[in-house]
Amino acid sequence: MENFEYCNPVRIVFGAGSIARIADLIDRDHKVMVTYGGGSIKRNGVYDQVAEALTSHTWVEFGGIEPNPHYETCMKAVEKARAEGVDVLLAVGGGSVIDGTKFIAAALRYTHGDPWEILQTRGAHVNDAVPLGTVLTLPATGSEMNMAAVISREQTQEKLAFLRPAVFPRFSILDPRVTYTLPRKYIRNGLVDAFVHVMEQYATVDSKAPLQDRQAEAIAKTLVTEAQAILAEPPDYDARATFMWCTTQALNGWINCGVVQDWSTHMIGHELTAFFGVDHAESLAVVLPGVWTHQFAKKRAKLAQLARRIWHQTQGDEDTQARAAMERTEAFFHAVGMPTRLSDYGIDRDGIQRVVQRFAERDTRLGEHQDIGPAEIEKILTSRL
Amino acid sequence: MENFEYCNPVRIVFGAGSIARIADLIDRDHKVMVTYGGGSIKRNGVYDQVAEALTSHTWVEFGGIEPNPHYETCMKAVEKARAEGVDVLLAVGGGSVIDGTKFIAAALRYTHGDPWEILQTRGAHVNDAVPLGTVLTLPATGSEMNMAAVISREQTQEKLAFLRPAVFPRFSILDPRVTYTLPRKYIRNGLVDAFVHVMEQYATVDSKAPLQDRQAEAIAKTLVTEAQAILAEPPDYDARATFMWCTTQALNGWINCGVVQDWSTHMIGHELTAFFGVDHAESLAVVLPGVWTHQFAKKRAKLAQLARRIWHQTQGDEDTQARAAMERTEAFFHAVGMPTRLSDYGIDRDGIQRVVQRFAERDTRLGEHQDIGPAEIEKILTSRL
Repeated sequence: MENFEYCNPVRIVFGAGSIARIADLIDRDHKVMVTYGGGSIKRNGVYDQVAEALTSHTWVEFGGIEPNPHYETCMKAVEKARAEGVDVLLAVGGGSVIDGTKFIAAALRYTHGDPWEILQTRGAHVNDAVPLGTVLTLPATGSEMNMAAVISREQTQEKLAFLRPAVFPRFSILDPRVTYTLPRKYIRNGLVDAFVHVMEQYATVDSKAPLQDRQAEAIAKTLVTEAQAILAEPPDYDARATFMWCTTQALNGWINCGVVQDWSTHMIGHELTAFFGVDHAESLAVVLPGVWTHQFAKKRAKLAQLARRIWHQTQGDEDTQARAAMERTEAFFHAVGMPTRLSDYGIDRDGIQRVVQRFAERDTRLGEHQDIGPAEIEKILTSRL
Repeated sequence: MENFEYCNPVRIVFGAGSIARIADLIDRDHKVMVTYGGGSIKRNGVYDQVAEALTSHTWVEFGGIEPNPHYETCMKAVEKARAEGVDVLLAVGGGSVIDGTKFIAAALRYTHGDPWEILQTRGAHVNDAVPLGTVLTLPATGSEMNMAAVISREQTQEKLAFLRPAVFPRFSILDPRVTYTLPRKYIRNGLVDAFVHVMEQYATVDSKAPLQDRQAEAIAKTLVTEAQAILAEPPDYDARATFMWCTTQALNGWINCGVVQDWSTHMIGHELTAFFGVDHAESLAVVLPGVWTHQFAKKRAKLAQLARRIWHQTQGDEDTQARAAMERTEAFFHAVGMPTRLSDYGIDRDGIQRVVQRFAERDTRLGEHQDIGPAEIEKILTSRL
């Protein structure tokens, strides 16, 4: 097992009716800025619940944070929060709104220079941030219980991340009923996103950490087993609660304690989103099978373990089991309605070249062995045409 | 799934060499009181590592906190800390030293009345405590990552608990190498303690929380599978690391999110410790099979699931599987060298009467259905003679 440090102070308030708890979770004398996205929260009743909970607070709002939140939009929110003298941010939305709000929180207290540096330096100089809370409306990214944010810059088609303890939410409200009005596509995305998050932390090498392996498998197995109940209409409360809790735990730092991680699928997927606007989860479903195929020899033992424990594939040798894990994973994506090919999004060899070119400029080495460079990325993506 | 709230801010610093990190984790201008137990840390090198890390700090020490820490001892530590003007407590030991130090931390800031009230009221008025950190030397109770403490009063043979966020450790140092010098009995106790902690949060009713079920099973399965490697001499680093991380996670509040809990085995076991000095883990191994047998009909479904998932017992009906879970659990205790009968400790029917009498005085109802009163406790204990 590798040495590690773990500290996650986020207060999770989970369950039906929990949005009302905001009233007590934010000091009455703090001025709040509620941030949100395209306005779906005004149609599904969440905005009204938040407004009701904030009756005794002074608050303003900033809407219009887009999917893959733009730096440019976030900087407008920074201006507004500064002008309004805001003390606390309350992100009401999915991963994009929460990530954007983390950036806003950090930028408001950033004294080191141009806030764009926060992303260029992965947050190196972010030691302080305006306190933020969240009301999660779209289970998928796990942002509600971690200290990471991914921000895109429209101007340069870049998508960059930063991670700093200062942007851990002070609290996150998880009411599974907010998922009842989500289109099926978003649930599908959340299932795939969470599954791939687990795999980035699991399908690597043997870290001699059997507990962490089993904890990762617990999430993966639950996602696979419960997927159809989670997608079902009319929605089932317990299934949606399980969905929400799985997505949070897939990326709250818990299952990666003491183990070797990969994240190459995310790094490659981010570029597909940056260049072609493919949803984050869609990009992951395309790239993961390619990374696994390319890295098969090095990931074989872990993939075989996955097949045995998640899909009861105990027949055959390790090679057979590992191939079964790859097939079953792609079949799982298809079963929830997720495409897995670049051609499903009209991305061709020219598109691949644009992605490869960007990695070449950055002199990138990805993966748990740091052995995936531009040439390997080209092979991986070509296998996914 | 039940509604829940989860917040655990403890910083875990895990791995070989991590004791040296104390130097940075405590402010240099804070005066430290190091608390410990019977002095084993002076023989196994841990005391020297702590002293080395505190070279730049001003610190005093308080040794002699006994197993099942006594209120009387803790109050002496309170006096010393007050006289010395201590700012921070550093517990170096197992669950007893850490629990005792939590009580000391709370008592030092308790302004509501006599500190014994902290235990009589389960901590109701504890809103503040002196900051504390821990160096875990005996993996078992999980106290290093929770807000609970159990204290005994010699004078009245009482053993009582309190739980308050104010006594969460600020940090806990987990270096698996500290277990290398532990006698086999302590490792055995830790394995059983952690396993029973998981069962108190798992072997109850169906809470429609499949993720939490699998997370509990992940810990239980790892303990069962790795037990012999954990007990092996010479010690194996990764096995000991897994042991340490399992015991922490068995009782850090994670696996009980949103599920119904039991804890009757602990409540009954505490009295065996209070009256007869049986080790905490020993008492659990005696009582658990009795509680399961008595509550069999109500726990059957969950026990059957345990048998299927932990021991691959898929033959037979639910009843058969559930009985297999009970047999395999007791066999697991025996396999690690743990007795499971009252007679192993010389406790007879008269002893049982003393325990039953105490529960009768308190008008106790235990268990997830609150259906275990003095008469049921008598039956449970009699079945364990």
